[in-house]
Amino acid sequence: MKKVGILMGSKSDFDVVKPAVNVLKSFGVETEVRVISAHRTPDEAHEFALNARTNGMEVLICAAGKAAHLGGVIAALTTLPVIGLPVKTDMMGGLDSLLSIVQMPSGIPVATVGVNGGENAGLLALQILGIKYPDIADKLADYKKKMQDKINADDKALQELL
Amino acid sequence: MKKVGILMGSKSDFDVVKPAVNVLKSFGVETEVRVISAHRTPDEAHEFALNARTNGMEVLICAAGKAAHLGGVIAALTTLPVIGLPVKTDMMGGLDSLLSIVQMPSGIPVATVGVNGGENAGLLALQILGIKYPDIADKLADYKKKMQDKINADDKALQELL
Amino acid sequence: MKKVGILMGSKSDFDVVKPAVNVLKSFGVETEVRVISAHRTPDEAHEFALNARTNGMEVLICAAGKAAHLGGVIAALTTLPVIGLPVKTDMMGGLDSLLSIVQMPSGIPVATVGVNGGENAGLLALQILGIKYPDIADKLADYKKKMQDKINADDKALQELL
Amino acid sequence: MKKVGILMGSKSDFDVVKPAVNVLKSFGVETEVRVISAHRTPDEAHEFALNARTNGMEVLICAAGKAAHLGGVIAALTTLPVIGLPVKTDMMGGLDSLLSIVQMPSGIPVATVGVNGGENAGLLALQILGIKYPDIADKLADYKKKMQDKINADDKALQELL
Amino acid sequence: MKKVGILMGSKSDFDVVKPAVNVLKSFGVETEVRVISAHRTPDEAHEFALNARTNGMEVLICAAGKAAHLGGVIAALTTLPVIGLPVKTDMMGGLDSLLSIVQMPSGIPVATVGVNGGENAGLLALQILGIKYPDIADKLADYKKKMQDKINADDKALQELL
Amino acid sequence: MKKVGILMGSKSDFDVVKPAVNVLKSFGVETEVRVISAHRTPDEAHEFALNARTNGMEVLICAAGKAAHLGGVIAALTTLPVIGLPVKTDMMGGLDSLLSIVQMPSGIPVATVGVNGGENAGLLALQILGIKYPDIADKLADYKKKMQDKINADDKALQELL
Amino acid sequence: MKKVGILMGSKSDFDVVKPAVNVLKSFGVETEVRVISAHRTPDEAHEFALNARTNGMEVLICAAGKAAHLGGVIAALTTLPVIGLPVKTDMMGGLDSLLSIVQMPSGIPVATVGVNGGENAGLLALQILGIKYPDIADKLADYKKKMQDKINADDKALQELL
Amino acid sequence: MKKVGILMGSKSDFDVVKPAVNVLKSFGVETEVRVISAHRTPDEAHEFALNARTNGMEVLICAAGKAAHLGGVIAALTTLPVIGLPVKTDMMGGLDSLLSIVQMPSGIPVATVGVNGGENAGLLALQILGIKYPDIADKLADYKKKMQDKINADDKALQELL
Repeated sequence: MKKVGILMGSKSDFDVVKPAVNVLKSFGVETEVRVISAHRTPDEAHEFALNARTNGMEVLICAAGKAAHLGGVIAALTTLPVIGLPVKTDMMGGLDSLLSIVQMPSGIPVATVGVNGGENAGLLALQILGIKYPDIADKLADYKKKMQDKINADDKALQELL
Repeated sequence: MKKVGILMGSKSDFDVVKPAVNVLKSFGVETEVRVISAHRTPDEAHEFALNARTNGMEVLICAAGKAAHLGGVIAALTTLPVIGLPVKTDMMGGLDSLLSIVQMPSGIPVATVGVNGGENAGLLALQILGIKYPDIADKLADYKKKMQDKINADDKALQELL
Repeated sequence: MKKVGILMGSKSDFDVVKPAVNVLKSFGVETEVRVISAHRTPDEAHEFALNARTNGMEVLICAAGKAAHLGGVIAALTTLPVIGLPVKTDMMGGLDSLLSIVQMPSGIPVATVGVNGGENAGLLALQILGIKYPDIADKLADYKKKMQDKINADDKALQELL
Repeated sequence: MKKVGILMGSKSDFDVVKPAVNVLKSFGVETEVRVISAHRTPDEAHEFALNARTNGMEVLICAAGKAAHLGGVIAALTTLPVIGLPVKTDMMGGLDSLLSIVQMPSGIPVATVGVNGGENAGLLALQILGIKYPDIADKLADYKKKMQDKINADDKALQELL
Repeated sequence: MKKVGILMGSKSDFDVVKPAVNVLKSFGVETEVRVISAHRTPDEAHEFALNARTNGMEVLICAAGKAAHLGGVIAALTTLPVIGLPVKTDMMGGLDSLLSIVQMPSGIPVATVGVNGGENAGLLALQILGIKYPDIADKLADYKKKMQDKINADDKALQELL
Repeated sequence: MKKVGILMGSKSDFDVVKPAVNVLKSFGVETEVRVISAHRTPDEAHEFALNARTNGMEVLICAAGKAAHLGGVIAALTTLPVIGLPVKTDMMGGLDSLLSIVQMPSGIPVATVGVNGGENAGLLALQILGIKYPDIADKLADYKKKMQDKINADDKALQELL
Repeated sequence: MKKVGILMGSKSDFDVVKPAVNVLKSFGVETEVRVISAHRTPDEAHEFALNARTNGMEVLICAAGKAAHLGGVIAALTTLPVIGLPVKTDMMGGLDSLLSIVQMPSGIPVATVGVNGGENAGLLALQILGIKYPDIADKLADYKKKMQDKINADDKALQELL
Repeated sequence: MKKVGILMGSKSDFDVVKPAVNVLKSFGVETEVRVISAHRTPDEAHEFALNARTNGMEVLICAAGKAAHLGGVIAALTTLPVIGLPVKTDMMGGLDSLLSIVQMPSGIPVATVGVNGGENAGLLALQILGIKYPDIADKLADYKKKMQDKINADDKALQELL
């Protein structure tokens, strides 16, 4: 069974996380969605990270905002790939979240997607799973095809409109 | 055979890319290192991306600077996970490279590491491979242990110094 | 027949693009307005760029936001002048779009206008056409005159108001 | 005779401007290179802009740094396409120059290239001329081909090195 | 008669300019408020600047947004002190306006106040006039006293509230 | 015995930390200086934070750069005041370090000083200790007096020079 | 009696300050809340700072926005720890306030919390008091425990929801 | 006798201040150059500001870096025009100094020049004096003429070179 762990630092981040959950579910991937804070529940974060692999998770997604340490704290304690999802803030549109996540020191990478990029976090998890599970890679090719069809339809609709 | 494709937009990016190559080699992972530019050799980029999976690659690393489109252009044409490695520039320390890589639109994620984060790009590729190849996950655990030992040794050395 | 190709990465960019279309039409220039994404429909982008000159286009306008690669991807495949139109985002008011478009590497320029500068993208296309078609240069001089008259009228209205 | 006017706000900008001059000369395009400051020699700027078209110029390149007004001041007085070339400064790598040039108000576009992008300013001028002079468009295609060959040679050299 | 010239690049800047007009009027200083654009009515700007001193003005205030050249263009043509008033924009809260105004090259200063700092532009004009007209300096001391009283009253009101 | 714990994420941060150590020693305060990384030695960080109070520390200083999580990770596990010391980086002069430290979520403050502000981190620790130990408060008053004397001496020297 | 002085530069900052007042009151700490401006009531600021220690205050919190000098001005005149609370502005989400407070020169630290971080300013004051008053340290441990419980409850609620 | 007060927060700022001193001296204006720190010698700053007018000064220039409060602190205590001169720092090329000086709250303007703009600070002081002393206005017109001649000579030299 394929499983992706999805953590958010606060329940208020759920709207940013939801597109990741949705796209993973639509690909038939199980998700474990958790509210765990690097700063407010550090022990839970510690325990989650240490047991993630044994609990069957293969990829982790960590959403957080402002001084967003969740991804780094989790990545420090596991060798699973950790995807960092910066949440938009008032500080220059989330630049604080982005830099706090992406600028990790040598040795502990966090695979960062764009600010509020929930769907992309989910798709990146799927691409990672896709190197092991060929059916996911196949579905990703379909997904790409559908995006292409949608843009082409938009293109056609616009031609007719003008 | 595990293989990681490593692309750079210009041969002048090689110093940034080298730590990625080195860490991958030290883990026994084959690398295909290429100078391919999204803008100057778009056809080569196109062909590389389309054939990457069939050519045995499982993860791709794309290093580029300034308006750094290489990661996005490659990610548009493959379902393999693509790691974006922003190269430092004069524009606010590489903020242009970083934003050009990480702020991808919905549908086409690029897994971004920090500016000039060559070693982290390599380690992220290894973490991704590690979900499929248990020996790599094991070696990553060793690597983590060695980093820890090194910091602990630095800590001890400092105590003695003071 | 004078023709300008106008591409947007997503149909949601149309409001930013519209002033460009309008000003070009008001000058009697034909436009081909397309929804083509560098990342979601890369083949269409490729084909459009390669055939733009033969299809009678003389200038191209590419609108995109965030990690905005459309202008660069098109410019890589044509020798026509390509105008980049950065779309406003939440990230510092579109700084991500702007830097992703303007900071092109040596060899592949993109003529960038301001964030959400749709009208200016259209006017720049007209200035470019104006070096070949004297009637457009003449109309641009009229346009400049009308802007001047409008500011002067605003000035007079304000004097009366105060 | 094809002619491009190249203005710099200070003679210290000449190193940034030189690659533009060189690439234009290598394409057989005449250049008129001038030190004219929007602030220190405003009358000269005024006169230059008003007479540029009659003096045979078809494209203008304006290089300036910091509060870089030269491009805008010239564009206010001509209907020729004006290319803005931001010069690197200490303020965030030239962000001041870039924003002062690219963020022009509606009605007066300046076609902006990247910070210190002298060669690209020259190439953009050539692309603009290319819509009128087919031989320049042809030479641009050759130039693109040579860039491609160079990257391919770099790629090959790297393969042999590794 | 003391007179301050107040220019704005567009009538939409009037709300930002109004507090300057108001504070100057409340000090009995005459204002000449004009809509003059550095880019759309460059000749009017030129003429205004050249004649400002003879027309009895002693200080000039120039409000503009985005690539805000008005202050610099006026300062290039007069030896009167020119106050630059950056108008808020979407680009990082007016950082484009601010840098375009404050980062003037050596030789042509523009006395810059904060973004949307209309009242401060007016007060700065008054401080400048105050070195020549002792009554204005006296009124400024009163103004300072009233501000102090107001803050003290706010302070007292808060104490009672808590 | 007064004691301040000083942590740095990497031994390369020692030069930034040294002024803090020096000023604390010159006030007769014991320091425990450690190399402990939030990411590379998370268990040591955990243990240090949990035992800091029982080990006699009253204030902690945490220096780190880039995605600087050390201060937040320590603050999550102790109720002692934690001072965050951002280390300069290439990314806009340490803006990444600064935002990663100062923008902490509600509930877990980190008392942040300026980038590379080692001496100020030490002085802030002393001000905090000073609320408990009157001798430290007295010495701080002396320190302030000496700074004042030094500036006054600089002022006098300059007068003589000119 | 434990007492914390809380200053704001303008009564409009009160909403940002309120969470600090609330958390301090809930810990049984007396607060003296004042509207005092570094620029509009400099004498009151001077007097407040000089007498703060004798008036029984042990920690000071200074909230201000834009060119936020209040914290620095107060810190210049006391040896008490001063907490700087940057108020959100339109300029990049309060980056002006943040840099004006945190980037203090050597010798005069201001303990800065995040933009609009009122609650954290209060908690930091409590952590500082906690080194002297064990009951406050104990209550902070309870506070931490409650935050943890709340996140855990949010976590559980989310599990049930999904 | 015309006199300008020039303050710097630290003697290390003298190189930035020198061009202001030089240009003022060359115009025959007396200068009082002082090292006075808003934070380290607040009483001296207070006294200087309160007595500046009676001591014969008509304009003040305040140079400072980082959290640069000197201009604001002085402006709070005088009705003389205060020119703020931001000193370059490592934080984004002096953006911290610039914002700390220019973003003053309503009521207390500081006339800000560009980062390290010492000569412009001096010239702005002269323009202000020029509204009262016609000989200074005349000399400024000469100065402007000489700048123009210099640029024209540079222009001519470049023509001959090419």
